[in-house]
Amino acid sequence: MIGVSRDPTKLGYGMARNLIQSGYPGAVHFVNPKGDSLLGRPIYPDVSQVPDPVDLAVLLVPPPFVPDTLRQCGQRGIRAVIIATGGFREVGPEGAALEKQCLEIAKGYGMRLVGPNCIGMINTHLPLDTTFLQPPLAPAGEIAFISHSGAICAAVVDWIRGQGIGLSHLISLGNQVDINETDMLAPVAADRYTSVLTMYLEGISNGTRFVTEARRVTRQKPVLALKVGRFESGRKAAASHTGALAGQETAYEAGFRKAGVMRANTSEEMFQWARALAWCPLPRGRRVAVLTNAGGPGVTAADALELNGLRLAALSEETHQGLKAILPAAASLHNPVDMLASAMPEHYCECLRILLADPGVDSVMVITPPPPSSTTGGVARAMVPVIQVTDKPVIVVLMGDRLIQEGVELLRAVRIPEYRFPEAAASALGALSQRAEYLGRVDETLMLTPGCDASRAHQLLAGQTAEQFTNQEVATGLLEAYGIQALKLILAASPEEAAAAALQVGFPVALKVASPDISHKSDVGGVLLNLKDVESVKAGYDIILKNARTAQPDARIEGVHVQRLLPPGQDVIVGVVRDPQFGPMVMFGSGGVEVEGLKDVAFELAPLTRREAEGMLESTWAGRKLRGFRNLPPADREASLAALARLAQLALDCPELGEIEINPLRVLPEGQGAFAIDVRAKII
Amino acid sequence: MIGVSRDPTKLGYGMARNLIQSGYPGAVHFVNPKGDSLLGRPIYPDVSQVPDPVDLAVLLVPPPFVPDTLRQCGQRGIRAVIIATGGFREVGPEGAALEKQCLEIAKGYGMRLVGPNCIGMINTHLPLDTTFLQPPLAPAGEIAFISHSGAICAAVVDWIRGQGIGLSHLISLGNQVDINETDMLAPVAADRYTSVLTMYLEGISNGTRFVTEARRVTRQKPVLALKVGRFESGRKAAASHTGALAGQETAYEAGFRKAGVMRANTSEEMFQWARALAWCPLPRGRRVAVLTNAGGPGVTAADALELNGLRLAALSEETHQGLKAILPAAASLHNPVDMLASAMPEHYCECLRILLADPGVDSVMVITPPPPSSTTGGVARAMVPVIQVTDKPVIVVLMGDRLIQEGVELLRAVRIPEYRFPEAAASALGALSQRAEYLGRVDETLMLTPGCDASRAHQLLAGQTAEQFTNQEVATGLLEAYGIQALKLILAASPEEAAAAALQVGFPVALKVASPDISHKSDVGGVLLNLKDVESVKAGYDIILKNARTAQPDARIEGVHVQRLLPPGQDVIVGVVRDPQFGPMVMFGSGGVEVEGLKDVAFELAPLTRREAEGMLESTWAGRKLRGFRNLPPADREASLAALARLAQLALDCPELGEIEINPLRVLPEGQGAFAIDVRAKII
Repeated sequence: MIGVSRDPTKLGYGMARNLIQSGYPGAVHFVNPKGDSLLGRPIYPDVSQVPDPVDLAVLLVPPPFVPDTLRQCGQRGIRAVIIATGGFREVGPEGAALEKQCLEIAKGYGMRLVGPNCIGMINTHLPLDTTFLQPPLAPAGEIAFISHSGAICAAVVDWIRGQGIGLSHLISLGNQVDINETDMLAPVAADRYTSVLTMYLEGISNGTRFVTEARRVTRQKPVLALKVGRFESGRKAAASHTGALAGQETAYEAGFRKAGVMRANTSEEMFQWARALAWCPLPRGRRVAVLTNAGGPGVTAADALELNGLRLAALSEETHQGLKAILPAAASLHNPVDMLASAMPEHYCECLRILLADPGVDSVMVITPPPPSSTTGGVARAMVPVIQVTDKPVIVVLMGDRLIQEGVELLRAVRIPEYRFPEAAASALGALSQRAEYLGRVDETLMLTPGCDASRAHQLLAGQTAEQFTNQEVATGLLEAYGIQALKLILAASPEEAAAAALQVGFPVALKVASPDISHKSDVGGVLLNLKDVESVKAGYDIILKNARTAQPDARIEGVHVQRLLPPGQDVIVGVVRDPQFGPMVMFGSGGVEVEGLKDVAFELAPLTRREAEGMLESTWAGRKLRGFRNLPPADREASLAALARLAQLALDCPELGEIEINPLRVLPEGQGAFAIDVRAKII
Repeated sequence: MIGVSRDPTKLGYGMARNLIQSGYPGAVHFVNPKGDSLLGRPIYPDVSQVPDPVDLAVLLVPPPFVPDTLRQCGQRGIRAVIIATGGFREVGPEGAALEKQCLEIAKGYGMRLVGPNCIGMINTHLPLDTTFLQPPLAPAGEIAFISHSGAICAAVVDWIRGQGIGLSHLISLGNQVDINETDMLAPVAADRYTSVLTMYLEGISNGTRFVTEARRVTRQKPVLALKVGRFESGRKAAASHTGALAGQETAYEAGFRKAGVMRANTSEEMFQWARALAWCPLPRGRRVAVLTNAGGPGVTAADALELNGLRLAALSEETHQGLKAILPAAASLHNPVDMLASAMPEHYCECLRILLADPGVDSVMVITPPPPSSTTGGVARAMVPVIQVTDKPVIVVLMGDRLIQEGVELLRAVRIPEYRFPEAAASALGALSQRAEYLGRVDETLMLTPGCDASRAHQLLAGQTAEQFTNQEVATGLLEAYGIQALKLILAASPEEAAAAALQVGFPVALKVASPDISHKSDVGGVLLNLKDVESVKAGYDIILKNARTAQPDARIEGVHVQRLLPPGQDVIVGVVRDPQFGPMVMFGSGGVEVEGLKDVAFELAPLTRREAEGMLESTWAGRKLRGFRNLPPADREASLAALARLAQLALDCPELGEIEINPLRVLPEGQGAFAIDVRAKII
C-alpha cells in the first residue's frame, strides 16, 4: 500500500486501516517516503525495500508521483496495481496525458491497472479491502458489485447493510485506463463465492465485446445492470427513419437483451432482484400463488404480479380441499388465498405446504402485515422449514417496520428473501422468471440465411460515396444479393422510355422520381401509383418532374423509376442501422411516412435468432397484424422474418454499409412472399 | 367501547388498551355483559348504564349481537358508531343481510356508521385510538390515511415509523355500509392538523360524486391515491372502438385527473410524495439544480429528473462565478454541480445558498453518499438553516444506511424530506411540480358549446331500441343538433334512388351499406368510394348489396347511404362512452379500422376544459399531427377541439345516450372545419 498516512483524517490512513481490519491473510506492507510506522507495522520509504514477493500494489500518492511510483512497482516485479489517486482524465487534458503516460509505463512492464480515480476493490471472502471507505466494513455475501462510480460504491456498501444482503466483491473501476467493466466480468463470475453480478454502468467501453463476454457469463450466473446516462446525448440528426428511431438507449436495451443482462431501473430494484436470484431456486413458470391473511395485500399483490408479467396460478381441486380442511369457512380459497386475520403461524405453514405441492403453482408469495393475534417472527419461524425443502421459490412480504423486525431477521439468517411490499416481491419474482426463461433458450440457434452473396454486395458498395444514399439500382442490387425480393425498377429518362419500361414490367405501374437528393419522394409529389396505360405513364413522367423541380429546384433528377404495382398486402418497414457501440441493429415496424410519429417499431442486434425476430413482430402492431386482422388475410410472416434475418446478415457481412431501409416492404398473403417496394442504403 | 375483553390475547382487550394509552382527554367507558373491570375502569354490563353523554360508540361484539347493540346505542342517544366486528357482507349473503339490517336500524335513529369489518379509526392529535393495532401507537404527523383495507392500515402505521413520518388520521372504512371514502374527504381535509390526504382504494362507491367532492378538497390540500384492482375485471365486449378501448382503469385515471387526485403506483411512492407535499413549499417551475460530491449520483439524478418530467436548470453566470470562488478547480460547476469528494459541510451550505439564489432554479436536490472526509450529520447540520429560510423546495438524498443515520434524524426532526436514492427524490420533486401546476389551473373554465339543442337530441333518441345502434339518420341528427358538421347521408333503396341521391349531394360520392346489423361496413365490402358518375353509382349499389348479403346473409339491409366525398384532410376518431362509475368519457385518437391495434387514443371525462381537450390532442400522434406533418398541411385543430367539447356536452345532456363515435372525423385544413364521415350512436 503506497501512500499510507499516519493522519487519521486522511484517506491514506483509511486504506491502511481497512486493509488491516479486513483481516487479509497475506503479508501487508506500507510505503511512504516519510517512513515511520503505522498500526504496528513499519512504513517503508519506497517499494523497493518491501520484503516478500508482492502480488498487488495500491497507490494513493499525488498524481505527479504516480508515473514514477508505477515504474518502481514495475522494477519491483509487481504486475497488478490499483491507482486510487484522482486528478487524471476527469480534471482535463493534462490529467488525461498523465493517465496515458501511466498506461504506457504499465504496458512496458506487463502490468495491469485498475483506476485511476477509483476507491479500490473489496473481496469479502479472501478477505481483502483496499478501499478507504468508512467503517463498518462491507458485509460479506454472494453478490458482486462492479461500478463506474466510487461514490455509488460507498453508498451501496452502506445501504445493503440495512437490506440484509452482502457482497462477494466490490470493484470500483474509476477512469478505466486499462481494465474496464467488460474485463471484470469473466474473472468475477469465476469466483465461487459469487452467485450474482451487479453493475453500475455509465457507459460501455466496447458494446460488441461486452455482449460477447457477457453472453458467456450470463449462461452461468445472472448479471444485473443499472445503466445511467439515458438522456445525455442527442444523436446527430439521421436521414432514415431507422436511424432517427434507433437511439443510443435502444442500442443499450438491445445489447443487454442479447447478452442476457437483466437491466434494472433503479439501484433498489437491482439489489432486490439480486437477493432473490442469489437465494432462490428458479421457477418453472410464471404461475404464482399468493398466501395472505387479508384482502388488501392480496389485491395489491395481484396487481403487482400482472404488472410484472406474472399470473395468479389456478389452484387444483386437491389444493382447495386441503385449504378448506384447515381454514375457517369465510376464508377465500381462491388465489390469492386469504386465510383471514385470525391466521396463526401454523396456518401459514400448512397452507404454504399445500400450495407448494400443487403442480400448477410455480412459486409462492406469502404476505403478512403485522398480524393481530400473533407475531411475524412466529409466522416466519413456522414457514422456514417448509421453504428450506422446496425447489420452488418462495418470497415473503413482511409489511411494516418495527413489528416485523423479528421475522425479517429470522428470514435473512436463512437466506429467504423478504420485502416490505408486494410490489417489490412481484418484481423479484419477475426477475426469477426472466432468468429461468433466459436459461431455457441460451442454446437457440441463429436464423439461417442461405445463398447470400457478400462479394456481390461489397462490389456494389465499392463505388459509393460515404454518408450519401446510394442510387436505387445499388440498393436493390444489395437486396437481390441477399435473397430479398425487390420490385424491379427501370430508370427512364424520358416519357417515351417510361412508357417502354411500363410495357416491359407490365401494367399497372408506379412512377417514382429518381434523384439522389430527394429522400422522401411522396412529399414532393414525386410518386404516382396505379397508372394503367401508356398515355398516363407518359403524362405522369412530366407531372413528376414538374412537381420535383418545383419542390426542390436544386435536386439532381435522373428521371423516373418505373415499377410494377404489387397486389395488396401489408406494408411494413424493415431496416438496419449501425450503432457505433453495438454494431448492426435491425428494425421492424409500421412503415409509411408516419413511422417516426407512430413509433410502432422494435429493434434487436444482429445476428437474429428466430425468437428475436418473432419478438420484433410480436411487440409491434404492424407485426401482430401480419397474423391477419379483420378483413386483412394472414400475411407471409415467414417472408418478413427472412427479410429481417437477411438484412441483419448483410449488415454483418458489409461493415462499410451504414444503413439500409426497406420502406415499405409489401408482405403478401401467406405463402406469397414479401417484396421491397422502396429501399435506401448508405455507406459509412 | 362495547365488547371489551379482559383477556390480553383478544382484540377487545387491544382496543381498550389503545384507547387508554392514546391519552384520549374525554371520558372513556367500557361495556361488556360480563361486567367486572379493566385497566382500572368499571365494565358496564350494557350501554344504557354508561354515565355522561356519549359521542361515539365502538362495537366489537359478535355479529349476531350487533343489531341489538346498535338499537341500544340509538336509544342511548349515540349518533356515531364504529362497527369493528367482521362477519358481514364479506362472508356471504347472510352477512350482507345482517349488514343491511344494521344500516336500517342506524337510519331509524339518525345514526352514522363506520364499518363493519374495519379496524377502527385513529386521530393522533385529539388524541383518540379506537383500533386494536399492536403497540407502539401510531406516530403523530400531518398525513391522513383513509383505507379500504384494515390490514393495509396495520402495515402502514408500522411502516411509516421507519420512514420518519406520522399520521394525523387513520381511517379504516371496512365494508362501508354507510360512510364511504368519498364521505370522509371533506371532514378530514377540514382538520387543521392534516396537510395531505392519502388513500388506499379498492374501488370508488360513486365515481361522479367522488370527482365532485375530491375536486373541492384538492383545491385546498393534496389528495394522493393508491388504487388497486387494476386488472380485476374484464368488461363485457364492446361493439364500438371507444367502448373497447375505454377500460375501467382508463376511467379511474381520467377521474383522478379531473379531481386533481394524484395517483401513486405503490404505497412507498404515495408516502414519499406525501412527505414532500407535507413539508416543502411548492416550486415555481420544473427547473432543478442538483448538488452533489461525485459524478455517479449526479448522472443518476439527471436520469431520474428527466424520467419524472423535470429538467436540469441552466445555471446563471453569477451562480457559476459564486461556485467557482469556493470550489476546487476540478469541480464541475455545471448542473449537476459536483463539488468533488473533498466537499466539506460548509461547501454544501454555501453552494446550496448560491443555487437557491439563482432565479433560474426552482428547486434543489442535494445528494450525498457517505462522504469520505466528513459525516452526513455534519452536512445536514450545515444545510438546515439554509433550507429553513428558502421558499424553494430542497430535497435531500442521503445514500446509505448506517453511516447516514445522524443526517437522517437531523433532517426528520426539522421536517426536511430525505430519501435514500435520487430516483425517489426525483419522484417527490415531480409530485411537488404536479401539485403546483394543478393549483395554477384550478380556475380554468369549461369549453363553451353554444347552440346545442338538447330537446332535439332527446327527441331523436326517444324512439330507439336499447343497446342497439341507432340508424344513420338519428346519429347524424344528434351531431347536427350539437353543431358538429356531418356529411349529409341519403338513404337509397334502389340503384335509381342512389343515382338520384348522388346527383343531389354532388359527385364524387361514396356509397355505404345501410344496415343496423353491420358494424364494420368496410370489412364486408360494404363501402365504395370516389364514384364519379350515375352509371358507377348504379353499378355500385348492386355490388354493395351483393357483398353485404354474401358476408352477412342474416343482416337486415335497408339499401345504401349516399354521401358526398370530402376533400382530403386528416381522419381521426372521436367518441364518447358512458362509464358506469364516472359518466361520459370522451376519446380522441387515430381512427380508421386499426384504432384498437394502434391504441393511439386519449380519454378525459366530460365536460372538458380547453386544456383537457388540448391535452388529448397532444398525447396522441393523431392529435400532434394536426399541427401539420411533412406534406400534410396544418389541420383545423379548433374544429377538432370543438367536436370533442360538443360530443361531451351531448353525452352530459342525454343520459340515455350510451355511446357515440365518429370514425372518421375528417379534419380539413385550418379554418375549413371538420366533418363527421361516419357516426354510430347507441342508447343505454
